[in-house]
Amino acid sequence: DNLIIADLRGVESHGAQRLKRYVKAIEKNAVNLRPNIRIERESKIHALLDGDEGLGQPVSYKAMKMAIDKAKENLFGMVGVRNSNHFGIAGHYSLMAVDEELIGISMTTTRPLVIPTWGIEKVIGTNPIAIGAPIEDMPPFLLDMATSVVSTGKFELYRRKDKPIPEGWGVDRYGEITTDPNEVLSEGAELPLGGIGEILGGHKGYGLSLVVDILSGVLTNATWSKWVKNTDEKNSNVGHMFIAINVEAFMPLEEFKRRMKEMIMDIKKSKAKEGKKIWYPGEKGALTAETRLKIGIPIYHKVLEEINEIAEKVGVEKLE
Amino acid sequence: DNLIIADLRGVESHGAQRLKRYVKAIEKNAVNLRPNIRIERESKIHALLDGDEGLGQPVSYKAMKMAIDKAKENLFGMVGVRNSNHFGIAGHYSLMAVDEELIGISMTTTRPLVIPTWGIEKVIGTNPIAIGAPIEDMPPFLLDMATSVVSTGKFELYRRKDKPIPEGWGVDRYGEITTDPNEVLSEGAELPLGGIGEILGGHKGYGLSLVVDILSGVLTNATWSKWVKNTDEKNSNVGHMFIAINVEAFMPLEEFKRRMKEMIMDIKKSKAKEGKKIWYPGEKGALTAETRLKIGIPIYHKVLEEINEIAEKVGVEKLE
Repeated sequence: DNLIIADLRGVESHGAQRLKRYVKAIEKNAVNLRPNIRIERESKIHALLDGDEGLGQPVSYKAMKMAIDKAKENLFGMVGVRNSNHFGIAGHYSLMAVDEELIGISMTTTRPLVIPTWGIEKVIGTNPIAIGAPIEDMPPFLLDMATSVVSTGKFELYRRKDKPIPEGWGVDRYGEITTDPNEVLSEGAELPLGGIGEILGGHKGYGLSLVVDILSGVLTNATWSKWVKNTDEKNSNVGHMFIAINVEAFMPLEEFKRRMKEMIMDIKKSKAKEGKKIWYPGEKGALTAETRLKIGIPIYHKVLEEINEIAEKVGVEKLE
Repeated sequence: DNLIIADLRGVESHGAQRLKRYVKAIEKNAVNLRPNIRIERESKIHALLDGDEGLGQPVSYKAMKMAIDKAKENLFGMVGVRNSNHFGIAGHYSLMAVDEELIGISMTTTRPLVIPTWGIEKVIGTNPIAIGAPIEDMPPFLLDMATSVVSTGKFELYRRKDKPIPEGWGVDRYGEITTDPNEVLSEGAELPLGGIGEILGGHKGYGLSLVVDILSGVLTNATWSKWVKNTDEKNSNVGHMFIAINVEAFMPLEEFKRRMKEMIMDIKKSKAKEGKKIWYPGEKGALTAETRLKIGIPIYHKVLEEINEIAEKVGVEKLE
């Protein structure tokens, strides 16, 4: 589900092309396929789960489900996860809450690929955060963002296409801006949202990355990005945090959704730059999903081959 | 307190120089000096307050106090405010929670001074958010940021000094980058964190601004930035949201603070660019406050004159 939702919404970097990596991690025995997911702490409004080194998606699904149930019953739910792995696209879990007419927030630590402001060593993560909320008669609001300028997948895409990256995405080993994606992905580093230094707010992106580390790494008793390992290594110890907020705590649901629509329409109807259109977070993804549900998901030949190789190996039907 | 904390921490734009504006609003009868602050909704973990058009600071203090009490007793507190005014520096309220050894989050809608991605009309706010957390033996973590590239105060500072602003902070009336602060503050607009368009993540800053609108404007039954008015106008209807999280829900407090310290030290000890130092959010502000508590707060002559004019008018002792 997690991979398909990513592909449906047009986030290919987190779609079926990730399957190969997950399978590799399983083959390397770095992921526990029969995890004993334990509830370590729990109250009416919160819980802490130990993922027992299983795949990130199942424990994340369970955690957001718990947060949703708590929010439905007690207005608010906050469920942390430790000892987990890469959980895929963050927006998936926030949308689970939105499907239940709640505000949903998801976040996760990631491997350290980003430099802090004025640093040249990769010690912070791309640490994404996704926030969703329902809107009357419209696809839900969904901000699903890495706290770095762009996600790691974007660098990989430019490398695959052998294209230079825009100035401001990443730096070389000396901490200087580079347009070479290879440089960034090897000895260099990604930049936090706001870019290099402080002049355009790089310290804000750096700070947001730390907020994700605090809530999903420090508070969950997992670890923070500096020590997070790749999914194909043992004890990645990724941490996540899932939050669900019941809007009925503040006003009737229908009123909230109507107000959301009014706010979004105020912005969408405002004057745009010539030839441009104003989108709200989640709108393009929802439109892409709508289309792809009708005409199918286009995937790269290489990804199709990878999927079919895996299918053959595990003995399930191939895609055509 | 709110103004002095801003000045102590070096955030002059939100310090004593704001006093004149608040007084002006009071003189114009735009602020209710004897507000009847009402609790409109309440549970063990949340509340909604009506600020009755009073100054933003007192109702915000009360709201965060309630959130803190709830978090201490029931692990979590979330208190929204509507019908309020400019609440000053967001970090003040988050630090109130940190002083009680909790994680504190504060945010507020602001007047519309920022354009959404691809827009040219000011329909979103600089909508700040502040997140604080305690650290063992060290000044607390405090990320206190506008979701725009820089706060409005920065533009005013450059205008006062008659200096061009850096490229990437704001646009002219046509939505094109300008270095003229007058242009930005008149017909132009401020840019969301991440800058113009989508290439460096401007849509993320725009999205974060909307998240603040959703939580502190839509959900509180206040209004969203587009309709927020200046404090010197009647019915500004500013909305705020205050959240306090009890870390003891997840682990003993001392363990959390120790882990915070480890994480922050991991980053501070990492390699910095030559001649540079790595700071964590809140560190510079805390050091500035420490120094200023000893040697005093430097203020501009003009601000001192303003304060003394006000002092004379209301019959309190002047500053020297």
